[in-house]
Amino acid sequence: MNKNATPTEVANVVAHIVERGFRPVEMPGADRLAIGVLGSNAASIRDAIVDLPGVVDAVPVSKPYKQVTREWHPEATVVDVASVRFGDGSCAVIAGPCAVESRGQLLDIARAVHDAGAAMLRGGAFKPRTSPYSFRGLGVEGLEHLAEARALTGLPIVTEVLNPSDVEAVAEHADMLQVGTRNAQNFSLLEAVGEARRPVLLKRGLSNTVEEWLLAAEYVVSHGNPDVVLCERGIRTFETGTRNTLDLSAVPLVKSLSHLPVIVDPSHATGHRHLVASMALAAMAAGADGLMLEVHTDPEAALSDGPQSLTVPMFQELMGRLRRLAESLDRRLATAPSPKVGVSPA
Amino acid sequence: MNKNATPTEVANVVAHIVERGFRPVEMPGADRLAIGVLGSNAASIRDAIVDLPGVVDAVPVSKPYKQVTREWHPEATVVDVASVRFGDGSCAVIAGPCAVESRGQLLDIARAVHDAGAAMLRGGAFKPRTSPYSFRGLGVEGLEHLAEARALTGLPIVTEVLNPSDVEAVAEHADMLQVGTRNAQNFSLLEAVGEARRPVLLKRGLSNTVEEWLLAAEYVVSHGNPDVVLCERGIRTFETGTRNTLDLSAVPLVKSLSHLPVIVDPSHATGHRHLVASMALAAMAAGADGLMLEVHTDPEAALSDGPQSLTVPMFQELMGRLRRLAESLDRRLATAPSPKVGVSPA
Amino acid sequence: MNKNATPTEVANVVAHIVERGFRPVEMPGADRLAIGVLGSNAASIRDAIVDLPGVVDAVPVSKPYKQVTREWHPEATVVDVASVRFGDGSCAVIAGPCAVESRGQLLDIARAVHDAGAAMLRGGAFKPRTSPYSFRGLGVEGLEHLAEARALTGLPIVTEVLNPSDVEAVAEHADMLQVGTRNAQNFSLLEAVGEARRPVLLKRGLSNTVEEWLLAAEYVVSHGNPDVVLCERGIRTFETGTRNTLDLSAVPLVKSLSHLPVIVDPSHATGHRHLVASMALAAMAAGADGLMLEVHTDPEAALSDGPQSLTVPMFQELMGRLRRLAESLDRRLATAPSPKVGVSPA
Amino acid sequence: MNKNATPTEVANVVAHIVERGFRPVEMPGADRLAIGVLGSNAASIRDAIVDLPGVVDAVPVSKPYKQVTREWHPEATVVDVASVRFGDGSCAVIAGPCAVESRGQLLDIARAVHDAGAAMLRGGAFKPRTSPYSFRGLGVEGLEHLAEARALTGLPIVTEVLNPSDVEAVAEHADMLQVGTRNAQNFSLLEAVGEARRPVLLKRGLSNTVEEWLLAAEYVVSHGNPDVVLCERGIRTFETGTRNTLDLSAVPLVKSLSHLPVIVDPSHATGHRHLVASMALAAMAAGADGLMLEVHTDPEAALSDGPQSLTVPMFQELMGRLRRLAESLDRRLATAPSPKVGVSPA
Repeated sequence: MNKNATPTEVANVVAHIVERGFRPVEMPGADRLAIGVLGSNAASIRDAIVDLPGVVDAVPVSKPYKQVTREWHPEATVVDVASVRFGDGSCAVIAGPCAVESRGQLLDIARAVHDAGAAMLRGGAFKPRTSPYSFRGLGVEGLEHLAEARALTGLPIVTEVLNPSDVEAVAEHADMLQVGTRNAQNFSLLEAVGEARRPVLLKRGLSNTVEEWLLAAEYVVSHGNPDVVLCERGIRTFETGTRNTLDLSAVPLVKSLSHLPVIVDPSHATGHRHLVASMALAAMAAGADGLMLEVHTDPEAALSDGPQSLTVPMFQELMGRLRRLAESLDRRLATAPSPKVGVSPA
Repeated sequence: MNKNATPTEVANVVAHIVERGFRPVEMPGADRLAIGVLGSNAASIRDAIVDLPGVVDAVPVSKPYKQVTREWHPEATVVDVASVRFGDGSCAVIAGPCAVESRGQLLDIARAVHDAGAAMLRGGAFKPRTSPYSFRGLGVEGLEHLAEARALTGLPIVTEVLNPSDVEAVAEHADMLQVGTRNAQNFSLLEAVGEARRPVLLKRGLSNTVEEWLLAAEYVVSHGNPDVVLCERGIRTFETGTRNTLDLSAVPLVKSLSHLPVIVDPSHATGHRHLVASMALAAMAAGADGLMLEVHTDPEAALSDGPQSLTVPMFQELMGRLRRLAESLDRRLATAPSPKVGVSPA
Repeated sequence: MNKNATPTEVANVVAHIVERGFRPVEMPGADRLAIGVLGSNAASIRDAIVDLPGVVDAVPVSKPYKQVTREWHPEATVVDVASVRFGDGSCAVIAGPCAVESRGQLLDIARAVHDAGAAMLRGGAFKPRTSPYSFRGLGVEGLEHLAEARALTGLPIVTEVLNPSDVEAVAEHADMLQVGTRNAQNFSLLEAVGEARRPVLLKRGLSNTVEEWLLAAEYVVSHGNPDVVLCERGIRTFETGTRNTLDLSAVPLVKSLSHLPVIVDPSHATGHRHLVASMALAAMAAGADGLMLEVHTDPEAALSDGPQSLTVPMFQELMGRLRRLAESLDRRLATAPSPKVGVSPA
Repeated sequence: MNKNATPTEVANVVAHIVERGFRPVEMPGADRLAIGVLGSNAASIRDAIVDLPGVVDAVPVSKPYKQVTREWHPEATVVDVASVRFGDGSCAVIAGPCAVESRGQLLDIARAVHDAGAAMLRGGAFKPRTSPYSFRGLGVEGLEHLAEARALTGLPIVTEVLNPSDVEAVAEHADMLQVGTRNAQNFSLLEAVGEARRPVLLKRGLSNTVEEWLLAAEYVVSHGNPDVVLCERGIRTFETGTRNTLDLSAVPLVKSLSHLPVIVDPSHATGHRHLVASMALAAMAAGADGLMLEVHTDPEAALSDGPQSLTVPMFQELMGRLRRLAESLDRRLATAPSPKVGVSPA
């Protein structure tokens, strides 16, 4: 529908659809309302509705997800996270610790990844843990440390949100809201971040098909938030030599199906730091719009996921290799914004 | 710790643990506080703490989950849901529609499954759906229909809860709270139902190992709710001939590892009604403490999961076969409580 | 085609098929030649060929496998292995050691399983092993021990064949040829046993879909051997609590798609002897036409698969439970033929 | 053992091992005999045997596979296939049709991939097919076409062998023997190619772990053939958006565990030609020693695997991108040897 379509015009289109035996579904988007037409041979209705008042176009979409398809929106979407852009051809490297463990740990790592060229900072304040007895994160205190790290380095922040009721608090401190792999089909949470005013980093569920993953993105977009970045982080298979199986083919597959940007997290996928660099390079070569990497100043002492965290020197070396690879692909690494005026890095 | 252990006694035990280089974790349970001792060779600390004031016993537990293990609690736990008992050797059949679609639909099905011998009624009011455009359930109205069906038939109600903020409302109407497969590692929700005063039906996650499933149960129990019934409902594999792959071996495996009851949902597992009866019989033979079956008076018209719903005559026939099978195993089918006095079935 | 159809009649039918733009495929079977018609809308050709000379009937088959479908052959096939019948409603228990380790070991186990009521004896002479350094079986010597065990007890023998060039030698000693899970798509071997004059026990491949499994059976049948018994033995999934994941739903699924008998091997599926009895009972309740169980007189000393072998007392107890379960299902356990006259058990 | 160790020296070492309670396993290799020592704490025997006559060294190997480990042979093995070298840092592109369909088809494709820079030619003469009714290849005639294509272009040939009894015939025409994914645990075939005098291309089994894959390679090496190139070609998972799931992490993982070269087949892995180029680039970036690509002059008419075959123009463009990527990684594409003197391309 036209952006300015009136309720009467919408009702008229709906009536036409019902009359012809199809099922109309209102699909609210960021800019305008779309009306889905469900039913077999739904494309046959096109002529009957395309010229009704308030209708901009009638687009046949063959997939169960609609607004995230290339059919719906042929050009690549660029998601802007505090000036770091995903989907514009550059490759944005997000780096940082798995969990915020202390102010000192976070600031040290933030400075190190910033100086090595990262574009954004990651760090968990609310940690989903398989065991109720594992370290669960510092909570709001962790968010405050993240905000301080951003002030010092300029790096925008992405951090995970676990509970619909925490979305507002996390959105206050973070530049981007992460939905983790175990919540990839937590539809209450997807709706909550769909109503938030922050870009969303949507990890693929541990055993979600690409179709289910795009339907999860559709939840977010259909609740009004068009700024979704997808993140492949490995799927669960029979192989035990790696923590998960990184499904890099999902990168070109998703990019052919959807206009949304896709990044890759080789740290969680492989689970072993000596495999991370190879898979980071491979991900960029496969066309990923960004990378998410765990880096720690002292991986042996990390409270979670130490074995998969790169050391700072490993990260520095990898950034050099990524830069050179980007050039050969006519791409470049995205850069972080400067810290705000009046705040100087220590 | 003893039920009446004082804070000072607890602190003293904790201090002894820390002093010896181990990590103490307080594990609150329904009856009393336990203190976990983490670290390699933790069993060596036994002699040093078992005689401290307030300590009842020191039990070595080799698994990452603790309170749900047989080591912790050797006897089978019996979970009582409004007089229907899971884990006492009987087999409790829970039946009903996938979703509550209307008052009439639900009451018809409730009467039919009651008359055929079901012990409890299932029906979704809040439905998790892969697509944001699918039928999402009637919400609170659905809960009210369920409560009416219970009043008419006596059948206790189990229904799914999706959002931590809905737990209270669902617990008001339902006798048992279901956590679905897509929320099996939604730790916020597990904590919320752990604090509720209702038994919990915890489905296994689509790609969760038995260990992860038991850790999810540990979340609920460690938040104070000991009444957890586990439900195997099929896992995700490469096989496409069935909707999921029913992992029946998980029944004896879980029962050897844990004291919690386990039931089986062959409807979601197979996805095809002509396979449900065979797998229901197999599940009982494998030792399941109950079954969860989708039944619909008009499966072709069902708003969700029609292809896997048994018709009423199929359900009636299956109940006869289950009864006979139970006898040969020296078991019996659990029966529903009578409706409360003063309420008569229509 | 009619059993006595002449080459000219066959050629005439083929010509009619080609003329109409379809692709004819000759599908030789045990009794008669069938001619498959491939191409979209192939069913439309029925009227044009059903009355040609030599044609018995024209049957539309919607699956990629043809001769093993229920559409092709609606009644259940009964496979007779030296008088033990699979598919006639009874349940045939095949028991014995994973590998033939010595004459004494085999004869002891054979007597024990015979006395407990087994219908057939299993035992590997040629063992497929993941590592080239593991025990590979006694080879021909093992076959001779098996033949001796049959002479003593009357139990028909099933044993695995690994190499097309060994089929003849194995068929000389064994009553049934087993194709193992790692050879389930070894098409050279499938063709070789398809040309042998012995019934075939076809295990499902470790990661084969039901469709691929039935296509493997189609290889055997289309090479002239109609006597195929399928064996579900667990598939590979992410779950590590059991050796494989027993896909019991495959039993009713295969029986709805195919007329071939299906048995279940809970020993390889679960990998742990304490889970075997539950799954054996479940398999029978699910409708399996037989069971394949590993039994050892001294599992701790077994050269392969000790942890999953039942002890003799466990097997005896299980047989009693199976017998009682069979009665409740109006079935019975198949019994072994008597040893041949003139040979007396030691 | 020393290359010139005498039988007496070998027997002496074996006796020492047995005496100390361990199990000796003779592991014949290409150059010399190794004696494995199996048993817990086997490393403790080192001092007792390292100085015995004929012993070169005693190396502790912690894996079930031995001769293929980096512990056994720290330097990368270079496999030479008619002058095309795998494992020397270059990247060798093998290209050609899935199946040899006719002389003309093969020669056309051979010339096209040669001119675009391929180093070797692939093409199936014996095709393993899931259905017995699919095109099975031209057999020996196909081998002759391959030999002719080599004579014309100089491209060495790799083709699949299915049956141990065919190894000799295939080795006569081909420069490299391919063992396909369905035969990855066909131990009879692995032994047969282990005795052949040709390098072996060993595809990973559809659901084989990296450990099983390396054990399969150990079969070949322990039968005397050290020239094994591993090929990752996608594993079976729940994802249906691609034909298989390409496990690129296996490349750095295998290279850390083993000294053998590893190549990648993105055609079978993805199953869709529009995904092949991205994954070919990713594979090289991940460190693959080569690529195997299906190319067809007329994919729509291909008798097998048409949808995943690159067209010639797509292949030409990809080769340009691979060349540029190789440079940025300080690598280069391997080149084909010249055709033999006296044979000129048509």
